[in-house]
Amino acid sequence: MVSRSDIALLHRLADAARDEIRPLFRTALQSEAKGDASPVTIADRNAEAAMRKIIEAECSADGIHGEEYGVKDGKSSRQWVLDPIDGTTAFLAGRPIFGTLIALLVDGFPVAGVIDQAILGERWLGITGQGTTFNGEPVKARLCTKLAEATIATTGPHYFSVEQGDRFMALAGQTDHKRMVMGGDCYNYAALASGHIDIVAEAGLKLHDYAALVPVVEGAGGFMSDWAGEPLHAGSDGTVLALGDPARLEDVLDVIGNA
Amino acid sequence: MVSRSDIALLHRLADAARDEIRPLFRTALQSEAKGDASPVTIADRNAEAAMRKIIEAECSADGIHGEEYGVKDGKSSRQWVLDPIDGTTAFLAGRPIFGTLIALLVDGFPVAGVIDQAILGERWLGITGQGTTFNGEPVKARLCTKLAEATIATTGPHYFSVEQGDRFMALAGQTDHKRMVMGGDCYNYAALASGHIDIVAEAGLKLHDYAALVPVVEGAGGFMSDWAGEPLHAGSDGTVLALGDPARLEDVLDVIGNA
Repeated sequence: MVSRSDIALLHRLADAARDEIRPLFRTALQSEAKGDASPVTIADRNAEAAMRKIIEAECSADGIHGEEYGVKDGKSSRQWVLDPIDGTTAFLAGRPIFGTLIALLVDGFPVAGVIDQAILGERWLGITGQGTTFNGEPVKARLCTKLAEATIATTGPHYFSVEQGDRFMALAGQTDHKRMVMGGDCYNYAALASGHIDIVAEAGLKLHDYAALVPVVEGAGGFMSDWAGEPLHAGSDGTVLALGDPARLEDVLDVIGNA
Repeated sequence: MVSRSDIALLHRLADAARDEIRPLFRTALQSEAKGDASPVTIADRNAEAAMRKIIEAECSADGIHGEEYGVKDGKSSRQWVLDPIDGTTAFLAGRPIFGTLIALLVDGFPVAGVIDQAILGERWLGITGQGTTFNGEPVKARLCTKLAEATIATTGPHYFSVEQGDRFMALAGQTDHKRMVMGGDCYNYAALASGHIDIVAEAGLKLHDYAALVPVVEGAGGFMSDWAGEPLHAGSDGTVLALGDPARLEDVLDVIGNA
């Protein structure tokens, strides 16, 4: 389903985004007050434009769904979903743990995904049926035999509704909450795929925020779904759950599930 | 007050901590379940031991206050305050934004501080009266003419009491809260010194958590105090406020102040 040339293309897309993003990290917001675009906005736009140009030249029949430049319908079953900078607040705060997200969807379901950290030169690549690599080396999510020993992460409570926040906190309270980490955006899912975190739970995410995460997490042996345990696809409700150890799904849904 | 040889010593201490920390980042918690120490605990202990050994050999009259190995009283007015890994949860989560904190106090007040990121090779060094550098280059905190345009950061709401959390949220609500970032530990103060963040507010911090931050932030033109606006010293109450632009102090204390 994902060919060798698709994989090579994913790398070239991520490389192109890196080239646009790197020069703008930690640059001053000099003229933003005058209404000019901020560095992150420029990096976001330029990185997406660079990726779209390559896709349009090489895969003209495929659809494109980008955070910055919207949807271009395709004539194939394939769609490229792009989030040039996931974690714009982290980028602005000078933290090198934002990411470029690139997903290939077939019939609305993600089959390949990239999480790329432009500044650190870190790239997680997940391909359905072929596993996940970090800078070319296979990675595995870790086992987690007890919910009470799980490390949980979320970008921030301010992204939840009150009711979602209550459910997240109920779940966090059953984990090893002394190890809970906030912030992180897509980097949390990459860390989960590499075996450093056990659970990520978020809400309010859009297709471009979660599409690329699914092949990365599941290729590493983890599991992703919405908060009802249903697979993520183009029409999901924006609640997102990632588990390093799929055996903990029932425990987690018992607390956070909206079924 | 801080001599050239003190500065050279600060660099050697940070180098020694890096050597201990780097090999243990992103290593598995293989036998932790059997009661063995986790990689972060080993890194924490070994880094502090390496730093104490140097201080004891070269500044035997000075006191030492370390997170891991406690207080050694000195015979001078000087005390070295060490936090080998600030942000142990970030370390465990595989995020390279934890930091080694080294402070030199004279009569209980910090006069030199280092925030060192071992994995990325990033070092902020602040010396009272001599400014702050990032990897040897001078850095400045940025101006912030309106509280409504400020970017605020805190490591997580779970570190506040309910009452502190309410006050933090009241402050956050008056900033540009779309840009608020969670997580970060000491890295938030480093980012503030480099002009990427405007306000950091935290509570429950210990001397080893905040001593090194003060010279870094103030050397960059920023301001640090507790939530009552009082200078931070060995006997502070653990509430910590950092401002990139000291001109916003009154606005901030009006909301968060516990006076």
